[in-house]
Amino acid sequence: METVSGKILSDDMEIKELVSKNEGEKVKTHGMIYSIKPMGDFAFIILRKRDGLVQCVYEKGISKFDLSDIGCEYSVEVEGTLKKDDRSPNGFEIHAETIDVITKPHDEPAINISKRKLGLSLEKDIELRPLTLRNNQKRAVFKIQEGIVKGFRKYMEDNGFTEIHTPKIVATGAEGGANIFKLDYFGKKAFLAQSPQFYKQTLVGVYEKVFEVAPVFRAEKHNTTRHLNEYVGLDFEMGFIKDFREIMEVETGAVKSMISTLKNEYAKEVKMLNVVLPEFDEIPCVKFKDAKEMIAAEYNRKIKDPYDLEPEEEQLISKLFKEKYNSDFVFVTHYPVKKRPFYAMDDPENPKFTLSFDLLFRGLEIATGGQRIHDYDEQVKKMISKNLNPEDFESYLMIHKYGMPPHGGIGMGLERLCARLIDEPNVRYTSLFPRDMTRLVP
Amino acid sequence: METVSGKILSDDMEIKELVSKNEGEKVKTHGMIYSIKPMGDFAFIILRKRDGLVQCVYEKGISKFDLSDIGCEYSVEVEGTLKKDDRSPNGFEIHAETIDVITKPHDEPAINISKRKLGLSLEKDIELRPLTLRNNQKRAVFKIQEGIVKGFRKYMEDNGFTEIHTPKIVATGAEGGANIFKLDYFGKKAFLAQSPQFYKQTLVGVYEKVFEVAPVFRAEKHNTTRHLNEYVGLDFEMGFIKDFREIMEVETGAVKSMISTLKNEYAKEVKMLNVVLPEFDEIPCVKFKDAKEMIAAEYNRKIKDPYDLEPEEEQLISKLFKEKYNSDFVFVTHYPVKKRPFYAMDDPENPKFTLSFDLLFRGLEIATGGQRIHDYDEQVKKMISKNLNPEDFESYLMIHKYGMPPHGGIGMGLERLCARLIDEPNVRYTSLFPRDMTRLVP
Repeated sequence: METVSGKILSDDMEIKELVSKNEGEKVKTHGMIYSIKPMGDFAFIILRKRDGLVQCVYEKGISKFDLSDIGCEYSVEVEGTLKKDDRSPNGFEIHAETIDVITKPHDEPAINISKRKLGLSLEKDIELRPLTLRNNQKRAVFKIQEGIVKGFRKYMEDNGFTEIHTPKIVATGAEGGANIFKLDYFGKKAFLAQSPQFYKQTLVGVYEKVFEVAPVFRAEKHNTTRHLNEYVGLDFEMGFIKDFREIMEVETGAVKSMISTLKNEYAKEVKMLNVVLPEFDEIPCVKFKDAKEMIAAEYNRKIKDPYDLEPEEEQLISKLFKEKYNSDFVFVTHYPVKKRPFYAMDDPENPKFTLSFDLLFRGLEIATGGQRIHDYDEQVKKMISKNLNPEDFESYLMIHKYGMPPHGGIGMGLERLCARLIDEPNVRYTSLFPRDMTRLVP
Repeated sequence: METVSGKILSDDMEIKELVSKNEGEKVKTHGMIYSIKPMGDFAFIILRKRDGLVQCVYEKGISKFDLSDIGCEYSVEVEGTLKKDDRSPNGFEIHAETIDVITKPHDEPAINISKRKLGLSLEKDIELRPLTLRNNQKRAVFKIQEGIVKGFRKYMEDNGFTEIHTPKIVATGAEGGANIFKLDYFGKKAFLAQSPQFYKQTLVGVYEKVFEVAPVFRAEKHNTTRHLNEYVGLDFEMGFIKDFREIMEVETGAVKSMISTLKNEYAKEVKMLNVVLPEFDEIPCVKFKDAKEMIAAEYNRKIKDPYDLEPEEEQLISKLFKEKYNSDFVFVTHYPVKKRPFYAMDDPENPKFTLSFDLLFRGLEIATGGQRIHDYDEQVKKMISKNLNPEDFESYLMIHKYGMPPHGGIGMGLERLCARLIDEPNVRYTSLFPRDMTRLVP
C-alpha cells in the first residue's frame, strides 16, 4: 500500500545551500527566469527563486542549450558549475550546462518585471499585480509585512497572550457609523466585522490576554492614500490593567519586537528597500488637547475641529516630535469622548476625554487603543448617551453583566505601518490585492 | 515629558512563578473567582488565571476578609502564604490573608461555570458563550486550537513558506456553486471568499511556497454537525512539484508538527481533555474508486453516488483503515473530475479523475488538496467544459498566461481537525463563536 510519511525529498538546492557550495561544484536548482541579458557570446540568465535571485551564465559552445529555447517567466531547472563572484547576487553564479524547461508561459510578460523600478501608474500596477508582485523589490515589501506580523505574534506569545479567531460575519457593528458592509445571511441582515472588538473583550474574561491577526472591513467612502476597505488588523486586548498606560507599554513592546524581527530576520529586504528602521528606547506621549495646541502655536494654524485630528495635524505632530525629541513615534492620548466609540472609558479626571490613545508613526496614525468600560451600568449609560439601544448589544453586555476585570487593548493597521516603514505614501502598495472603492480585482 | 518604553512592570505572579516559590513565602496574585466552596470554618476559593486555576484557602479568624464580600466572577487580588499541596491544581495553594476586590459583576452568573461538565444544550451553550467559555474545560479546547495553528505555522515557516494575507471580499467565487455569500460593495456585486484559492496560486508565482491562516466563508445550507458557514482555513500552496504526492508529504509534515506542538507545549490541555494524540509514521493512501469498492465489499453497501463520498462512507473508510492498518488518518486520492473544481488537474492516466485528495481523520474529511492546472490552454478548456466563461476569470488567468510552475496545495478546516482531536462530534464546540444558518450571535 502506498503511504506518505511527511519526508520531503526535494533535490532542489535553495540559495542558502548554494551559498555554502565550493567553487567548481556541480549544482542543480530550479526557478523562474526573471531576465535574460545577452552579452554577445555569453548571457546572464537571472533565476527567481523562493529565497532570492540567482545569476546563471550561458556561454556559447559550453552551455548545452540554445538561448532561443528559453524566455522570461519560464519555469526551469538549471544544472551547472558554481563559481564564486562577488558581483553576483549572494556572491556566486552558476555556469549553466543544461536548462530543462518545466513549463513555459502562454504569452510574453505584459511588462518587463525585472526592472528595479517598474514605473507603472498605480492603476496599472494593481491591475497587473499577479505579474508586478514577481518583481524582486515588490516581493520584498510583503516579506517586510510578514516580518512585522511575525514580530507581533512573537511578542504576544512570549507575553502570555492567547491567539484567537473571531467571526467576521456579525450581527452588530462594533465601531458604529455608516462605514459597515452589509450582507444577506440566509435572509437575515448581517455585517462584516469592523473590528474584533466585542469578541476580544469577551475573551479577556476567558484568557485575560488575547490577540488576533485577521482581516478587518470598513465601508469607508474615502478614496485617500491612507484608507483601504479591507485591511489586516493586528489586535490585542488585556485584562487586570491598573492604568491605561499599561496597554501602551505592551504596544511599545510589540513594536520593538516587530522592528527587531525585521532587523534580525529580514535584513536582506530591509537593505533592498532602504528601510530606515526606527531606533528608540522610549515613545513620547502627549495629550490630544496639548498636541493640538502645540502645533497650532508652532506652525501658526487655526484649530478647526477640536474633536479629531486632521491628517495634516497628524503629520505636524509627528514632525514636531521628530524635530524636538528625534522620535519617529508619538502616542497621542486622551481623545475626546465625542470621537471615540461607546466602549471607551472616560477619563475620571475630565469626563470630556477618554482613556484612549493613537499611535502616530512618521506622520500617520497606525494604531488606536484605550481602556474599555468594564462596569455594566456605566456601559449601558454610555450607550444611551451615544443614542444606542442597549438591547441591541445584549450578547456583548453579557460580559459586563457577569463581570470583567479592568481591561483595554489596541488595533493596528498592518498596511499603514508597513507603508511608513518602507516610506511608501500609498497603502495600496503595501496590500497584496488592495480593496478600495473602485477595486475588487485582482 | 511622559514616555513609554515597553517595559511591563506587572507585579502579578503568574502560575509558573507561583509554582517556583517556597513553602511559606508571601505571594500576591490576581484572577477572577471561579468558585467558592465553603467548608465550615474554612473555604476554598478557586481563582481563574490566564494560565490555569489557583486554589486559595480562606480560614476563619486568620483571613482578614469576609466570605460574604466576594463572589463568583469577581476580579480580585489575593495576598497570602504559599503552601505546597499535591491535591491542589499545580501542586500548591495560597492561604489567603487579604482579598482586594477589583471589580464585581452586576449579576450572579446565569450558570455555574465551574462544573466539569456544564450539561447545557448546544443552543444554550452557544447563547451563553461569553460565560461558558470561562469554564476551564472549554478554555482548554481553544488552547488546543491555538496549538494546532502554532504547529502548522511553525512547519510552514521552517520549510520556507511565506505567510500571506489575501482579500476576503472578492469579485468571483473560486469554488463555484451557490454556496457563496453576496454583498453590496459600493453598488457593485461582491462575494465573500470561499477560499484563498486564486490568490494563493497567484502568489506561488511570486514566492513559490505560501501559506495563510484566515477565515473562509461558505453559504452552505447545511445544518449538520460538520458544517460551519464561517471557519478558519489553514491553507498552503507550493510550486515546482514533480508529483502531486509532494503536496501530501508537506501536509503530513504539517500535521506531524501540529501533533508534536500539542504534545510538547499543550500537554496540560491534552491531559485535561483526554485528547488521544494520533501516533503515526506514515499515512496510508487509497484511490477514491478503490476506497468506495473496498467499503462496499467490506460492509456490504451499495454505491449510490459514484462521484463523491457520503459522510457515512468517510466514516467507514476511516473505520476500515483504523482496523486494518491502525491508522487514524487516510488519504483518499484521485477524486472524479465531476466533483472537483475547475482548477483541479486531471490525472493523465485517467482523465475522468483528478490529481487530488482529501485527508480523512477519524471519520471526517478535514482537508482537501491537489495539483492545479498551470497551463493556460488547459485551464481555459477546463473552464469551458465546466460551463464557465473564461472572461470572468481574466485576472486569475493572468498567472497561467504569464507562466506558472507545476503547483498545488491544500485547505484544512481548523474546527474539524480540532473536533476530531478532542472527540467532539459537533464542530460548533470547536468554534469560539460559531456561525451557522441560524446563528449570528454571540
